[in-house]
Amino acid sequence: MALVVQKYGGSSLATPELIRKVAERVIRKKEEGHDLVVVVSAMGKTTDDLIRLAEEVAEEPPPREMDMLLSSGEQISMALLAMAIQDMGYPAISLTGPQAGIMTDTSHRKARILEVDTSRVRKELSEGKIVIVAGFQGLSTEGEITTLGRGGSDRTAVALAYALGAEGCEIYTDVEGVFTADPRIVPEAKKIPVISGDEMLELASSGAKVMEARSVEFATKYGVEVHVRSTFSDEPGTVIKREDPAMEKVLVRGIALDTKEAKVTIRRVPDRPGVAAAIFSPLADANINVDMIVQNVSQDGFTDLSFTVSTSDLKTALAICEGTKARVGAEEVTADEDVAKVSVVGVGMRSHAGVAAKMFKALADEGINIEMITTSEIRISCVVRKEQGERAVRALHRAFELDKEPT
Amino acid sequence: MALVVQKYGGSSLATPELIRKVAERVIRKKEEGHDLVVVVSAMGKTTDDLIRLAEEVAEEPPPREMDMLLSSGEQISMALLAMAIQDMGYPAISLTGPQAGIMTDTSHRKARILEVDTSRVRKELSEGKIVIVAGFQGLSTEGEITTLGRGGSDRTAVALAYALGAEGCEIYTDVEGVFTADPRIVPEAKKIPVISGDEMLELASSGAKVMEARSVEFATKYGVEVHVRSTFSDEPGTVIKREDPAMEKVLVRGIALDTKEAKVTIRRVPDRPGVAAAIFSPLADANINVDMIVQNVSQDGFTDLSFTVSTSDLKTALAICEGTKARVGAEEVTADEDVAKVSVVGVGMRSHAGVAAKMFKALADEGINIEMITTSEIRISCVVRKEQGERAVRALHRAFELDKEPT
Repeated sequence: MALVVQKYGGSSLATPELIRKVAERVIRKKEEGHDLVVVVSAMGKTTDDLIRLAEEVAEEPPPREMDMLLSSGEQISMALLAMAIQDMGYPAISLTGPQAGIMTDTSHRKARILEVDTSRVRKELSEGKIVIVAGFQGLSTEGEITTLGRGGSDRTAVALAYALGAEGCEIYTDVEGVFTADPRIVPEAKKIPVISGDEMLELASSGAKVMEARSVEFATKYGVEVHVRSTFSDEPGTVIKREDPAMEKVLVRGIALDTKEAKVTIRRVPDRPGVAAAIFSPLADANINVDMIVQNVSQDGFTDLSFTVSTSDLKTALAICEGTKARVGAEEVTADEDVAKVSVVGVGMRSHAGVAAKMFKALADEGINIEMITTSEIRISCVVRKEQGERAVRALHRAFELDKEPT
Repeated sequence: MALVVQKYGGSSLATPELIRKVAERVIRKKEEGHDLVVVVSAMGKTTDDLIRLAEEVAEEPPPREMDMLLSSGEQISMALLAMAIQDMGYPAISLTGPQAGIMTDTSHRKARILEVDTSRVRKELSEGKIVIVAGFQGLSTEGEITTLGRGGSDRTAVALAYALGAEGCEIYTDVEGVFTADPRIVPEAKKIPVISGDEMLELASSGAKVMEARSVEFATKYGVEVHVRSTFSDEPGTVIKREDPAMEKVLVRGIALDTKEAKVTIRRVPDRPGVAAAIFSPLADANINVDMIVQNVSQDGFTDLSFTVSTSDLKTALAICEGTKARVGAEEVTADEDVAKVSVVGVGMRSHAGVAAKMFKALADEGINIEMITTSEIRISCVVRKEQGERAVRALHRAFELDKEPT
């Protein structure tokens, strides 16, 4: 019998009724003849509620105690799911992250999984039980309860699938898979049946949130095939797997839109060696991720420098840049939140020329001005006016014929 | 520095504001120069909410999974209290029952504490930390999480106080201590400063719920002095300790009223050997606690037999008795829920005659009829009409002069 690891997110487990629906789904898989390990997140908004409680009792809740607090969320959902499955007549047992052998480093609230001791899980499986594991949590090398950070349950599932040599890893969520574009923007967007890990990562970092990035990385690295699909439907979702030659036949896999970035411009920066470092080092020290960077050609020994940051970091970034401005002798720092980043992603770009030209032309034909451009090997991103973002996505979706059935 | 164990109940920790108030209280004790171990229950009605969730996903939630579920409640409150204390500038650490070394047997949902491995708690104390321990939970000899049943947090506190050789064990609750009678019935009731464990047990089993009975038993047996007091006041509460000769000077310590019992009567039972066993064995088999039993003198080879059970057990008890009636050839089974049990309790009864006579006279002077009587060495209980119960308590409180200051 092949082993399958399933993971259900918080929205799939938000109420007792949904938990019973998940139990039925798990049992159906079991009846197909599979061994099953099921990783669960906390119910609905439990984690947010617990964080709010913590913030009400302490200004800066210590990470070790936060982990004690937050790990209770998955403990609740795992026990309830095990009960529901047993109530339907199938043997099941719930295990906390530590009981399931998820060993991590000692970084509370953002621990990394170091190894998985599968002995307890294997023992329970060998007794015919469906094993329910609390996602998002583990036991540190110092014997303390840790949590893996946002999206950590995905990582628990991938790590267990790898350590147990599972045949598959199914991530159940409230969307039906990864689409060629956000269906709310492009109604004719198509579900992508198969995508490479790299494409998935580029789409995720460009605004399409389906699965946590570190989990995708981990799965790709260790060759765990992940199937992202909907808890509320029986349709197949999107399979994320290692790149194979067939994937390059498709020029562009999908289009992403990110409206959560802001553009910062520093005007009339003296154009001399070391200035870029002077600007970006303090931002890095403050843990601010800078995404796109564009530097204009120099005039009279001065240049303009623009970059984008997450809107949540904008205030801090501006404060830092004001300080830098004075030090390097620049003229002005301005912010622009009315921007959107539109990206086309596909491993096919590696072997096909002309994707960028086609993208720029499609935007030009729509009268959309491009303010910044960056590229990776398999992605091209353009910053445009925010109000033109959705129109840009639709234009690109048409231009690359993503509404057509793949051949 | 002397070690003190404190325990705070759910109502004392029901909101973030209350948790901060408890933190202040804990810190005040620390500042007096004490080492502190603080046992916590789940916040407010958390445990009830979790039980309701379980009942919504499964008809009969398996006990092992219930313990997984319920133990999350104390995990939340312990982490929040540790955060609040640290936020106020004092070192603190929270420990689950298993981490605190509470070792139990394998009876899920009603586990018994077998021993306490104090090494982790002692280590944290030696580093100057205030140690917060999740009450109500432990680790079984098979390595599973267990819970101790209702009131189990009291037992955690008493067991830790004993194992650590603590100077004192303070049980903080939402009442100010044990009173000579329920102050809602007898406004002039007085707080009892010192009470023996036996008296406390008799009062508890007679309707005065302040502390869980098994915890009182355990404390008395192992010589742990318990101070029951209010979270919301600085007044001393009631100290429960081993009986000493001075205690016998007081004739009656307190009056209790229990309105949660019902009387069952089986009429015209053939009066022959083995009949009582035939009646009470099936009730015992169904785990129904029978409290008072009265058998009338026999007439014509038949007798009437009455006993009381908890009203929550009444339905089951009647069904069982109907079966027994047919088997033993009795005439009729009747139930009476309109009864109340009023009890006077005091170790002084052992050395003073006339308490019963005084009690019966006081009730007679009020025109209150006594329907059943039982006694223990330090308690006399009478069943009366339910609507006369409170008047009976007031009459007895006056008769034994419990409103006067103790000499």
